[in-house]
Amino acid sequence: MADIFDRLLKNYGPIGQYRERAHGYFAFPKLEGEIGSRMKFRGKDVIVWSLNNYLGLANHPEVRKADAEGAQQFGLASPMGARMMSGNTNYHEQLEAELAAFVSKEDAVLLNYGYQGMVSIIDVLCSRHDVIVYDAECHACIIDGLRLHAGHRFVFKHNNLEDFEKQMQRATAYVEKQGQGGILVITEGVFGMAGDQGKLKEIANLKSKYNFRLLVDDAHGFGTLGKTGAGAGEEQGVQHLIDLYFSTFAKSMASIGAFVAGERKIIDYIRYNIRSQIFAKSLPMPLVIGNLKRLELLRTRPELKDKLWENALKLQNGLKERGFDIGKTDSVVTPVYMKGGVEEATAMIMDLRENYRIFCSIVVYPVIPKGHIIYRLIPTAVHTDEDIRITLEAFTAAKEKLDAGAYKTNAIPDMAEKK
Amino acid sequence: MADIFDRLLKNYGPIGQYRERAHGYFAFPKLEGEIGSRMKFRGKDVIVWSLNNYLGLANHPEVRKADAEGAQQFGLASPMGARMMSGNTNYHEQLEAELAAFVSKEDAVLLNYGYQGMVSIIDVLCSRHDVIVYDAECHACIIDGLRLHAGHRFVFKHNNLEDFEKQMQRATAYVEKQGQGGILVITEGVFGMAGDQGKLKEIANLKSKYNFRLLVDDAHGFGTLGKTGAGAGEEQGVQHLIDLYFSTFAKSMASIGAFVAGERKIIDYIRYNIRSQIFAKSLPMPLVIGNLKRLELLRTRPELKDKLWENALKLQNGLKERGFDIGKTDSVVTPVYMKGGVEEATAMIMDLRENYRIFCSIVVYPVIPKGHIIYRLIPTAVHTDEDIRITLEAFTAAKEKLDAGAYKTNAIPDMAEKK
Repeated sequence: MADIFDRLLKNYGPIGQYRERAHGYFAFPKLEGEIGSRMKFRGKDVIVWSLNNYLGLANHPEVRKADAEGAQQFGLASPMGARMMSGNTNYHEQLEAELAAFVSKEDAVLLNYGYQGMVSIIDVLCSRHDVIVYDAECHACIIDGLRLHAGHRFVFKHNNLEDFEKQMQRATAYVEKQGQGGILVITEGVFGMAGDQGKLKEIANLKSKYNFRLLVDDAHGFGTLGKTGAGAGEEQGVQHLIDLYFSTFAKSMASIGAFVAGERKIIDYIRYNIRSQIFAKSLPMPLVIGNLKRLELLRTRPELKDKLWENALKLQNGLKERGFDIGKTDSVVTPVYMKGGVEEATAMIMDLRENYRIFCSIVVYPVIPKGHIIYRLIPTAVHTDEDIRITLEAFTAAKEKLDAGAYKTNAIPDMAEKK
Repeated sequence: MADIFDRLLKNYGPIGQYRERAHGYFAFPKLEGEIGSRMKFRGKDVIVWSLNNYLGLANHPEVRKADAEGAQQFGLASPMGARMMSGNTNYHEQLEAELAAFVSKEDAVLLNYGYQGMVSIIDVLCSRHDVIVYDAECHACIIDGLRLHAGHRFVFKHNNLEDFEKQMQRATAYVEKQGQGGILVITEGVFGMAGDQGKLKEIANLKSKYNFRLLVDDAHGFGTLGKTGAGAGEEQGVQHLIDLYFSTFAKSMASIGAFVAGERKIIDYIRYNIRSQIFAKSLPMPLVIGNLKRLELLRTRPELKDKLWENALKLQNGLKERGFDIGKTDSVVTPVYMKGGVEEATAMIMDLRENYRIFCSIVVYPVIPKGHIIYRLIPTAVHTDEDIRITLEAFTAAKEKLDAGAYKTNAIPDMAEKK
């Protein structure tokens, strides 16, 4: 009989296989210093394009003050226990009410983390008779929620309305034949890898043709899109047609936690039944207080979003003018597409980090398909014109080397952190 | 075709069905003030027995200082991104190393939350060919991990070694017939409802007879059991036979987060592949710094654990002397078993809260089977002799009323918080 550990050690996985050379550099790197556009990597200054600190709130003085005061006043232990048992507070309820109002919904429920929250939302909403129709490029948290779902599911080609309708027809026929169950559609406000917005408007408008409920993960749209920053639903004018609006706090809010908002009755149902919350400790008070402050800044400082977009457009237009392929992004997420093996990509990343002082992340399999590489740049409100200029110059120089074959290598260099 | 929301609203679930009368009182109550044995509930002082603040660390001055200083220095945003992408720090690695050393394992990996961590550990370890054998009373986080598992599973009767062997024989035969896959056994160090320790010694010693790996969730044992506080494995002398030792920080550590510890190679595999971590933001720095301080106190202040046990034994012996059934607990968790409907239980809880100023939690379905009620008392190192004396007297008085039928009622009283 096999030992489960032996099987695991035969293959450390797509990134783990390189760990002996990559640990602490290509994987698990340490960025040090205050969060901003300039940080330290291995003791040297770098321009950072890897953090979803869109509005620059991570290190905003009012946020830092709220974080410090919340921890001073309450410590990080309080409240203890799950919300339902002993961990509820007025602050948690206030944050829920303010989030709901901000995204134009009746009510909202706080979630401890985005990943686990989404997994558990899907679980709490759907019985084995319900059918889920979802976009093929949905984030891992949605995929793992689907894996918990005992019922049927239909996937539609990414942002492809023709295929969406085809899958809706299949799903509708399936449910009707079954004689019970309903349909939940899941897509995203902004797809975090390519930066393209989900076709929320088109999908939501198909509610007149098909019978379904719509759940939208707007992790990258919340705070960055829409007139008031309420996200992709507001941007596309269909917030009222989104039945459940979800976002993490890990991006614009520069925090941890998440929420889902919608009709009061449904949110109450979720509140009393969502397993990731009723079986886990409540979000610590200083995080709730810190998130109240962040939400206040989202609402009251439109100049942060304006600056974010100014920087994003300078970066995106600069890349396009220099001949880079940034795909179909219509958000601030800025992917730079290249093709090649992991070895060539890592050589270029090293050159950018070591010689040009640009820290960006590469995205490879399993987050995106094999053979593709995305250099993923995340502009923020705290990047400067100089940061953008230096970065564009560095990418131009690096691309010349790439085209000349200068990064061709057969090995991942050994850059692992030495203890 | 059905609307999934309509179905949900027909049944708000086992606790949600009472929400209109229970919200803010029986469910989602607010305990206010500094965490300790005396707090405020609806403006009145109560003696609190509901918080897993076993060692009293939540409000320990050194913990409060570390929490405040960590948030002052780093804010709650840092680091940003997942550990693997951009969220790794020396502090995270230091905490992992110290946790591993404390529980006598080679390495450990931090997890953002206990619930999601356990779900994802099971997912990362097991292929569809692997078989899981688990105790019937395992916590919801283990059950949800099992739900993600595509392979076969066998459940053994709670702490029943005869049935464990029977299920191991079935599992072994299944795997051998299948020709591939291995066996993972999952149990707990302390079962959080009944307070009885898992039979770790007996199960671990059966490794000489059966081929399996052993994963133990020691949420309630970590910090409270064993000579050094390293948990139920140390208490039972079999820590070296536990392949993967897991605990949350939500109990003794009075924080959030969790860890799993084991052989370095396996922990490295988990680190590079566990989906709840590679697709979620890193644990914020002040929580890591706060957890380092808590772990230091666990290691260096044995008097906290001694005091916890002194209080636990005073409470448990006092209850037994007064004729209460506290079942088979051999941990500090102190259940008081009674039978009856939810209505009678809530009337007694109300009387205890309103007239005796005792705040304890009742556990009802779905956490335990229908018809049973557990008044679950959690002693801590910060309870006083007076707290215990008052509580014993109150339980005695309440039990007399219960036996005299004074709590008989057909309705849940309307105690909901009014806005």
